[in-house]
Amino acid sequence: MNEPVVVSATLLRRLTEALLRDRAVRQDVADHVAASLLQTSLRGVDSHGLELLPHYVRAVDARRINRDPQYRFEQTAAATGRLDADHTFGHAAGAEAMTHAMVMARDAGTGIVTVYNSSHFGAAAYFALLAANEGFLAFSFTHADALMLSHGGTRAFFGTNPICFAAPCAGEEPFCLDMATTLVSWNKILRRRDADAPLEEGWAVDEHAEPTTDAGAARMLSPIGLYKGFGLAMMIDILCGVLTGMPFGREISRMYADPIEQKRFLGHCFMAIDPARFVDPAQFKERLQEMMERVRAEPQEDPDVTVMVPGDPEKQAFRERTQNGIPISSRTWERFVELAAEVNMPLAE
Amino acid sequence: MNEPVVVSATLLRRLTEALLRDRAVRQDVADHVAASLLQTSLRGVDSHGLELLPHYVRAVDARRINRDPQYRFEQTAAATGRLDADHTFGHAAGAEAMTHAMVMARDAGTGIVTVYNSSHFGAAAYFALLAANEGFLAFSFTHADALMLSHGGTRAFFGTNPICFAAPCAGEEPFCLDMATTLVSWNKILRRRDADAPLEEGWAVDEHAEPTTDAGAARMLSPIGLYKGFGLAMMIDILCGVLTGMPFGREISRMYADPIEQKRFLGHCFMAIDPARFVDPAQFKERLQEMMERVRAEPQEDPDVTVMVPGDPEKQAFRERTQNGIPISSRTWERFVELAAEVNMPLAE
Repeated sequence: MNEPVVVSATLLRRLTEALLRDRAVRQDVADHVAASLLQTSLRGVDSHGLELLPHYVRAVDARRINRDPQYRFEQTAAATGRLDADHTFGHAAGAEAMTHAMVMARDAGTGIVTVYNSSHFGAAAYFALLAANEGFLAFSFTHADALMLSHGGTRAFFGTNPICFAAPCAGEEPFCLDMATTLVSWNKILRRRDADAPLEEGWAVDEHAEPTTDAGAARMLSPIGLYKGFGLAMMIDILCGVLTGMPFGREISRMYADPIEQKRFLGHCFMAIDPARFVDPAQFKERLQEMMERVRAEPQEDPDVTVMVPGDPEKQAFRERTQNGIPISSRTWERFVELAAEVNMPLAE
Repeated sequence: MNEPVVVSATLLRRLTEALLRDRAVRQDVADHVAASLLQTSLRGVDSHGLELLPHYVRAVDARRINRDPQYRFEQTAAATGRLDADHTFGHAAGAEAMTHAMVMARDAGTGIVTVYNSSHFGAAAYFALLAANEGFLAFSFTHADALMLSHGGTRAFFGTNPICFAAPCAGEEPFCLDMATTLVSWNKILRRRDADAPLEEGWAVDEHAEPTTDAGAARMLSPIGLYKGFGLAMMIDILCGVLTGMPFGREISRMYADPIEQKRFLGHCFMAIDPARFVDPAQFKERLQEMMERVRAEPQEDPDVTVMVPGDPEKQAFRERTQNGIPISSRTWERFVELAAEVNMPLAE
């Protein structure tokens, strides 16, 4: 495996913007895609950041993703609404939906917006952080195509359906938990496969649903906590598939295996909550920071590693990568060089 | 270990009602406590059902639990409110809060109610099912005293903080996921201890945070999915401790170890969502049932065991126990006999 290429965030943002502009992706849509991919890669979540840009570009070219969507938002009550994403980038539709949720939360205390006719939305944290940075507690959910071994079964029914929760705190960036309901992400399997490295026991199973540590043989991922992670994935598909009127379970289209022309028909669910309707919001932020500091001060298993709060590894990566640049896999970098050449953008700083 | 005694639900309900009436627990409060304990035991969740009745009786006698609470509910916006439980049974305060959440959800599409100054609320499913039986999607959350080994740490900071989600479906009782964020409940450890049986690997650690299969040595429980379960527990303490103004983490009082006179100062969080604000509610119920049926029809790992949906074991237990009675541990049964004698209620049918 070749070493990744470390590239500045500035250059990667320019590349992303140039590729989307060249394809006539509408400015407001492109802005969210670029912001989400950059933020996600800076936070160290390579599986959901810029590594996906070549895939998205193909999907726009093939008209899977709509570059000029006509959003249709319908507020159905003081605190609820639904958004037709018109098959654009989930990154942009999700931000649009969370913005509506925040507007409702300002008046009604909370707001829930479901999204239908959407496509892959990248990292769930992008939307929850959007709201947490405005002072809201926020949830974001999406379903995904079948990849989690069903508890007690031999194949996958649900996806790695993530749960994401963020909340504002004093003195630092918001608390943010963003987790798949499988033990590890599929991308982690792929990286072990590329590196010819074995998997840890319990992560994955092969095509016969037998446990395997062979990354090449892995076909499905184990849920966290057996039936518990399976149950959480089902809960999320109820919110994102059943509550949105979209397909669910094994009927969800495949991100990669299905024809790239095929629209995804994905659903998402977003929620914003105004803490000021429950407690003094300044006190909320201070007490949350106190909780985070206390957790970090807990006695350590390894004397060299402090106990971490969800989001701490991402905050560390953000600081480091903002300084030193973002590592891009050699395979993706080669593709970036080709794509940049097509828009006459030499890939040098 | 002595065999459990199998007792009819009717007799156990009469006993519960008699013990609470004798202690002048207000009727509306007692009704929820009895309904919750019966339902929970019928659903097979012995750790949160009638086995706790002797503890609750002691807590009422010691004035930890208020028998005649003055609820103070404040609706703070169209879809948010908070309830002062005045230290009564969490079972009753939670039902009061969820009722307010449903009233708001009817108008505003959703409603969130936090509860403060509360006490142990039993099974989270009781509240979520209350709302799901009225046609709402519902969440219920509570925090609990420190018992989960912190990821990367050597002691417990968060409790087994459960997440519960229910949703109405056609043709059968609601979908209901009710799970601690630890791999197993503490009660499961205690039952193995009573039976002199070993634990499964990974369930628990001893006082030095070392993995143990010795039920007698177990002191803390492992989170599901390592840092993921730890993160979910923290999310729940943010909703139930920080957002309610109650203590959090290691400052939460101990259910058993602290003096029985000491009030708990617990917080909970409830949410009701009206599916009719998103899709046709009849279609929602039908599609959810279709999802459940499809999951149950998935190819099985064990030819004798179908793939189950969260809540299926509880539904089976409910049918079986409604017919045949509820098993009560011999230790609890002895205590029931003593308590029944105090209220001149002979324990025979």
